[in-house]
Amino acid sequence: MPPQHITSRQNARVKEAAKLRLARQRQQQGRFVIDGSRELLRAISSGIEIVEAFISESRCRDAETQQAAEAVSNSPAAVATVTEEVFEKLCFGERTGGVLAIARTPVRTLAALKLPATPLVAIIEGVEKPGNVGAILRSADGAGVDAVVIADPRTDLFNPNAIRASLGTIFDPNVCTATSAETQAWLRGLQIPAFAARPDATQLYTDVDYRGGAAIVLGSEAEGLTDAWSGDAVTAIGLPMRGIADSLNVSATAVVLFYEAQRQRGFPPGH
Amino acid sequence: MPPQHITSRQNARVKEAAKLRLARQRQQQGRFVIDGSRELLRAISSGIEIVEAFISESRCRDAETQQAAEAVSNSPAAVATVTEEVFEKLCFGERTGGVLAIARTPVRTLAALKLPATPLVAIIEGVEKPGNVGAILRSADGAGVDAVVIADPRTDLFNPNAIRASLGTIFDPNVCTATSAETQAWLRGLQIPAFAARPDATQLYTDVDYRGGAAIVLGSEAEGLTDAWSGDAVTAIGLPMRGIADSLNVSATAVVLFYEAQRQRGFPPGH
Repeated sequence: MPPQHITSRQNARVKEAAKLRLARQRQQQGRFVIDGSRELLRAISSGIEIVEAFISESRCRDAETQQAAEAVSNSPAAVATVTEEVFEKLCFGERTGGVLAIARTPVRTLAALKLPATPLVAIIEGVEKPGNVGAILRSADGAGVDAVVIADPRTDLFNPNAIRASLGTIFDPNVCTATSAETQAWLRGLQIPAFAARPDATQLYTDVDYRGGAAIVLGSEAEGLTDAWSGDAVTAIGLPMRGIADSLNVSATAVVLFYEAQRQRGFPPGH
Repeated sequence: MPPQHITSRQNARVKEAAKLRLARQRQQQGRFVIDGSRELLRAISSGIEIVEAFISESRCRDAETQQAAEAVSNSPAAVATVTEEVFEKLCFGERTGGVLAIARTPVRTLAALKLPATPLVAIIEGVEKPGNVGAILRSADGAGVDAVVIADPRTDLFNPNAIRASLGTIFDPNVCTATSAETQAWLRGLQIPAFAARPDATQLYTDVDYRGGAAIVLGSEAEGLTDAWSGDAVTAIGLPMRGIADSLNVSATAVVLFYEAQRQRGFPPGH
């Protein structure tokens, strides 16, 4: 069956899809938007279910976009080709490839995380900006962090800005959301030390030991971590701040900690 | 003399200032805009000359903004109070404090950089996004990098997005622009090793020695470094990439390298 061709911005499918720029609609529909070709390919290879896709054939020029178009066409997703005008309505002015996909929001829970014996995990609590969440996920992927828990999230996980900044690494099944309380109970079960980045910490991040497994805990730039992370079970660590500014961006702090932990744990031969 | 009060969006000063959102106008006028209160205070303490300032009194609520308003009022800058409508025209929808300042673009050159005996410097070549340049400058400030050279810049240094992402650390007198050729000649004079971050490097960033001074060289994410940085005088270094994505954001790579260099060089007691 050839794909449907849509020429009207008032088409019902187009209107429902365009609404997904709103967090409330993503919540109600249980679906979200994937804009970029690379992000879409990573979603598919991470097992995300694509339910619909809209293709602007005039924008399918590069190899990656053609690969994305082919991948959705070979999937059970309802694929439609659309006019440039319709595609622009769906994109909301975002730079994107020629394929815009609608995916079913997966349920990602602590219980489903698969971890090695002495894992390196990251907890991100209450970070406001989806772009920062995405940037942290991209860095966690690069550093080989085993799992990332977004605790008490301020936005839905699959916010378009988070997806874009993560370059699609957000779709990794070892990324989940939970409350801070659930996350702490889970951490106690793991029996690994927790290290919380705090501006007022007296212990240097290079002076603690990540080798037997570790949880790195990061909070909001504006408000810091909640009291849930101040107990005896958590060691506060800090990065030296040697300039006029008093803090790093939370995603900068995150990547320094991830790579210091992995440096101690030993980079694999040939990395 | 009380400050001028401006109520018209068509006021000549307002129109000239509003044009400064365009790079071409910043170049022509030799001036640029500073939006945030923290950024403005850092500009003043870094010796940037403020020539004009527009104050929306209804937005001067927090202590930092009041401090910024006071600082410009006590400076030789031509200060005007403006209506909310005029202020909105000047802000271009940016979130900002209640003070918008116009500064004279300073000349920042390699020759004027002041360096210690075995400096740690950063070279950023051809980075496209002003937000990434600003993020790298904020991290360089935090890590205590002695100087940052923006080589062959793609945008003007004092782009509003660069200023914002840098949180005002961009005004440090040890930040300058130059061509890549000038930068290389300068580096030869310094007689310190240069380490260029490259995705295809075989040498780990943790396996080189930054202690006798070092230049860390970073290129554009999309295009990498130009051939100017491929010679025998430059050692390619890489970060292990252990996930599905093939690279980190350039500002993430930068901060990992800055802190690894400083870790080796020894963090000061009490950091």
